[in-house]
Amino acid sequence: MSAADFDDAVIVLSGGVGGAKLVQGFLAAMDPAKLIVVANTADDFEHLGLSISPDLDTLMYTLAGVHDEQQGWGRRDETWSFMEALEGLGGDTWFRLGDRDLATHVERTRRRQRGETLSQIAADLCRQLGVKSRLLPMSDDSVRTRFKTAEGWLDFQDYFVRQRCAPRIEEIRFEGAQQAALQPTLSAALHHRRLRAVVIAPSNPFISIEPILSVGGVRAAITGCAAPVIAVSPIIAGRAVKGPTEKMMREFGLPPGVDAVLHRYDGLIDAMLVDIVDANTVMIKSPQIFSAPLLMRTSEDKILLARAVLDVVDRFAGEARSTRAKS
Amino acid sequence: MSAADFDDAVIVLSGGVGGAKLVQGFLAAMDPAKLIVVANTADDFEHLGLSISPDLDTLMYTLAGVHDEQQGWGRRDETWSFMEALEGLGGDTWFRLGDRDLATHVERTRRRQRGETLSQIAADLCRQLGVKSRLLPMSDDSVRTRFKTAEGWLDFQDYFVRQRCAPRIEEIRFEGAQQAALQPTLSAALHHRRLRAVVIAPSNPFISIEPILSVGGVRAAITGCAAPVIAVSPIIAGRAVKGPTEKMMREFGLPPGVDAVLHRYDGLIDAMLVDIVDANTVMIKSPQIFSAPLLMRTSEDKILLARAVLDVVDRFAGEARSTRAKS
Repeated sequence: MSAADFDDAVIVLSGGVGGAKLVQGFLAAMDPAKLIVVANTADDFEHLGLSISPDLDTLMYTLAGVHDEQQGWGRRDETWSFMEALEGLGGDTWFRLGDRDLATHVERTRRRQRGETLSQIAADLCRQLGVKSRLLPMSDDSVRTRFKTAEGWLDFQDYFVRQRCAPRIEEIRFEGAQQAALQPTLSAALHHRRLRAVVIAPSNPFISIEPILSVGGVRAAITGCAAPVIAVSPIIAGRAVKGPTEKMMREFGLPPGVDAVLHRYDGLIDAMLVDIVDANTVMIKSPQIFSAPLLMRTSEDKILLARAVLDVVDRFAGEARSTRAKS
Repeated sequence: MSAADFDDAVIVLSGGVGGAKLVQGFLAAMDPAKLIVVANTADDFEHLGLSISPDLDTLMYTLAGVHDEQQGWGRRDETWSFMEALEGLGGDTWFRLGDRDLATHVERTRRRQRGETLSQIAADLCRQLGVKSRLLPMSDDSVRTRFKTAEGWLDFQDYFVRQRCAPRIEEIRFEGAQQAALQPTLSAALHHRRLRAVVIAPSNPFISIEPILSVGGVRAAITGCAAPVIAVSPIIAGRAVKGPTEKMMREFGLPPGVDAVLHRYDGLIDAMLVDIVDANTVMIKSPQIFSAPLLMRTSEDKILLARAVLDVVDRFAGEARSTRAKS
């Protein structure tokens, strides 16, 4: 890979379902070979002896066009025989693994046990699936999100899937983040002078984007990067499209809304894209606010939103680093 | 488990498909709770990071009535999504694993990594599947069949599945067999005074039965046991119903036939059941020879053969140990 590969490249920082929708839009709105998708891997876990990377896989399936469009995660034409049989054997079935999806986990586990990194495995599986974009885990080192609740510290999937986000969160930690090394390709891309943009997908700021930013060196590389940094709001009219973003804001004493997201990305972004319904309600006036319809129901919605993001990016083209809000 | 559980129990030593058919017959021909099935585990291997026990599973699925009646191995109503997806990821697909079957391997692997034995896992999975009989691996220690061929030493599944038994065999070894400990329940059953019979299923004598007999202490326990020991011929009219038995006999310089099997079990068995077509061709006259139709095509064939075996067993009932051929 030569540095020129990063010319005009767009880096998208993403969690699972919501971010994957925007990534799907980018595939149609720009040259897929110039798209670099960075996946949160702090939700990764070991289950049934398998290494599972939920966000990485949701993004891989989306990039490969083999994703389940309806549910937003997992593979198209999935079957569930494994899960049925496992239930019959008295196995653990709280985390649903489809038969096709399972091939990814078995193959990844086998390769990790052989010493391959998450990055190597993701790159190879993506090549096998014909993906033209680059998919990078946020780090090849282990980072694990843990939640402090009234019942004590919970692992991510225990909180998220088994307990369906019910416990009230007192604190979130990303264990291992400080010691985790910045993914080398991500580092090179963020330091490239001709990078086109860094986009923060409309993913949960607390548990999908924050872990990426917590990896040693990521936040500094983003604030120092030459390209504009644009966030897309995960909140529309005070509500999260999916997941516990809104509930977490309440638990952290933040009124659920775009301002809470802006507060979160303070000093990091040049602009934020909010929904048209929120355009006139934003209290914070820096960084710059742009608006577009954010709800992605159809393929066309996704493409239009990706184009809207790129339009915002283009407004910053050629602008000197020093004039930007985050500087 | 009390010793009385072994009163009138029938122990069947078995490999995969052929033995499983007779086991299915026994389920209908006798009290299933009195059936103790001992599986060859020398074909076990690690594949895709999973612990796979082909014969043990074929027998478990048969005992549970969830087996695929047509192909003789694997589970009924099987689906193949995992394999298809794995192929798309560039994974190893020479050993076919169905989606339902995979649940067994994933669950077994997880438990083995936790330190559970093959016996504990088999007993628990059988209980989950409603199996009334006892299924025992021949040992909880690792025994691995290896073949010396012109290309060097091959692992069992490499020879058997990947190379479809094509290489000429010069030597067979059961690595670990001498050091492997006799399965405790099998040991107790073989030493029980009121055991009804030991049956050697019509499995391949060289690679399905011999590994069981090679485990330290098994052969001595069988020759010393109080019950009659009856073998069912895996050869009908000089041909093996399935698998490489006949080819192996040729490679070992033995004319393929019932006599080669008898030679193999010399000193071990009290009687052998041969097919009616072979009844008058047997050269060796000791041990005693009985005949019945051995080909098991239908469920009824299986039940009739199991009954024929039990009829032979009953001829030895009450007979003093000293009068028998093997003594």
